[in-house]
Amino acid sequence: MSEVKNKQVILKDYVSGFPKESDLNIISSTITLKIPEGSNDVVLLKNLYLSCDPYMRNLMNNPKDSLSSRAFTPQSPLAGYGVSKVLESGHKDYKEGDLVYGVTNWEEYSLIPAAQIIFKIEHTDVPLSYYTGILGTPGLTAYAGFFEVGTPKKGENVFVSAASGAVGQLVGQFAKLHGCYVVGSAGTKEKVDLLKNKFGYDEAFNYKEEPDLNAALKRYFPEGIDIYFENVGGKTLDAVLLNMRIHGRIPVCGMISQYNLTQHEGITNLAHIIYKRIRIQGFIVADFHHLYPKFLEFILPHVREGKAVYVEDIAEGLEKGPAALVGIFSGQNVGKQVLVVARE
Amino acid sequence: MSEVKNKQVILKDYVSGFPKESDLNIISSTITLKIPEGSNDVVLLKNLYLSCDPYMRNLMNNPKDSLSSRAFTPQSPLAGYGVSKVLESGHKDYKEGDLVYGVTNWEEYSLIPAAQIIFKIEHTDVPLSYYTGILGTPGLTAYAGFFEVGTPKKGENVFVSAASGAVGQLVGQFAKLHGCYVVGSAGTKEKVDLLKNKFGYDEAFNYKEEPDLNAALKRYFPEGIDIYFENVGGKTLDAVLLNMRIHGRIPVCGMISQYNLTQHEGITNLAHIIYKRIRIQGFIVADFHHLYPKFLEFILPHVREGKAVYVEDIAEGLEKGPAALVGIFSGQNVGKQVLVVARE
Repeated sequence: MSEVKNKQVILKDYVSGFPKESDLNIISSTITLKIPEGSNDVVLLKNLYLSCDPYMRNLMNNPKDSLSSRAFTPQSPLAGYGVSKVLESGHKDYKEGDLVYGVTNWEEYSLIPAAQIIFKIEHTDVPLSYYTGILGTPGLTAYAGFFEVGTPKKGENVFVSAASGAVGQLVGQFAKLHGCYVVGSAGTKEKVDLLKNKFGYDEAFNYKEEPDLNAALKRYFPEGIDIYFENVGGKTLDAVLLNMRIHGRIPVCGMISQYNLTQHEGITNLAHIIYKRIRIQGFIVADFHHLYPKFLEFILPHVREGKAVYVEDIAEGLEKGPAALVGIFSGQNVGKQVLVVARE
Repeated sequence: MSEVKNKQVILKDYVSGFPKESDLNIISSTITLKIPEGSNDVVLLKNLYLSCDPYMRNLMNNPKDSLSSRAFTPQSPLAGYGVSKVLESGHKDYKEGDLVYGVTNWEEYSLIPAAQIIFKIEHTDVPLSYYTGILGTPGLTAYAGFFEVGTPKKGENVFVSAASGAVGQLVGQFAKLHGCYVVGSAGTKEKVDLLKNKFGYDEAFNYKEEPDLNAALKRYFPEGIDIYFENVGGKTLDAVLLNMRIHGRIPVCGMISQYNLTQHEGITNLAHIIYKRIRIQGFIVADFHHLYPKFLEFILPHVREGKAVYVEDIAEGLEKGPAALVGIFSGQNVGKQVLVVARE
């Protein structure tokens, strides 16, 4: 049996407040690159690209204080979405050499239940890393959140926060493809430029330079907002509620501005949802995995023809994992934060 | 032409904070009991029963600070839902002697556009005042909010706040008829007794005697809440968000606890809607007027057979209007607050 070194990114202990690089550790363990005899429901993976996602912050909490009922295990590797190559399969649906996308561990090699695989990667004429983004969960999140939860109509006014992020950059493009007017907010000039010049947003602004978010939204939406694609929560949400139109919809994808606060900010304008008949709806992508084939059919031609673009922020090497993951909570990343473990 | 005295309840000026009786005034004006020549879209009404409703508080605000884009006009009579008798009609759909339900003014006689009439009262074997409650807008509000917005399933867990109020007492009864488990909250022992002994709530509690609303909800809903019928907002909503089940729904009918605050309380637990995929949806009954015939067909047999009950709090005489209306914001009323102008 071949036992090899297996570098891992582990969580030292549950985190409260802002996560720091020192909350994570790089350790070297070992793994036997062989599936245990008779295990017909596991696969052995070589991990290639790992996805750094905001929801992972909630999994660092002690589960008793968390939004999520799940949590990472202290002193064990993180887990998250990733692109991996099958080295050996105990499961009939997969074989050596397959490229797969699913929930894997933050380490070089992983032995995981085959049930954690979400799909097999069939199209390799596009960058493999895209399966952690535009062709993976963030892509499906944007698609399901905007089209299924947001129920957009042509000509409607759409606002997206964290608009250059892994999901936001796609929501803006989908909104334009659907014939909507779309405005995005982000936290740096560089990101605002991307929104306008790369992703096709009609308008964009830096929320850090707006002392009055309500006034900013009134400026960009004199007639109000039909759909607010919610990624951040907090003050932005409160200002949005003042600017929604009748029968507006707020698909709630995330509230990244709140995840590191021990006490979340209070939202004071909720009563506006009554007269305006607003629907605020939380969703998670796992409820929409069945739409993945339909989504892929929609998005692949756009990617191939350059009609949908995607900006990634690539960190090279598992050692960069702690910085890459922690960075997304202060907006260090420009575009989708990807961690490369190996390039095949 | 017969000119008669016409007592009115007028709003002195826009209100901020808690409304007081002194914000309203009783004045004696006059009215000519004759429709102006050639007016074929108005009706002349004798008002019988007026409805005291929480949404009226928002109409007392200066519209620039209000949730509603509409507002009462200072120095003019209030307007609201009521049961009236047609004295003369310029409109072909109505004739002298008809009993109608619609938006009328807080005065003895009103000349209003026929378009403000919502329906003609056809069934008079039930108390006429019921058309301001169980057979009127509150009834339709409970019906549409619970069945259409709440989309209940048999066996689900339902929580109702302001549960003995005009709408709440019906939501509880509808939930029981639908095979749900239902718990209500109210603000006095008398109301809690009504919930359990009159309206058939499975359980009920006095929120004023619960120092920890989260703990109270955990006691009554160890497995969580599927539907929260929201009438009050504020701390109750925040505690409910901690206790919702996955795919739960919150039809938002009102937030009466907030209407008299110049700054609404902050809701801090909204992020729970993401993992739990909660839908929070504001609604107003005007969007459901088309369901009234269907609703009446459903509710009338229940009323006649005593399978649906309704508790009214009756104030006699237009002079009692200010006290009756102001009282609902401190929970003085027990059941639906009705103001009798005349009994026919």
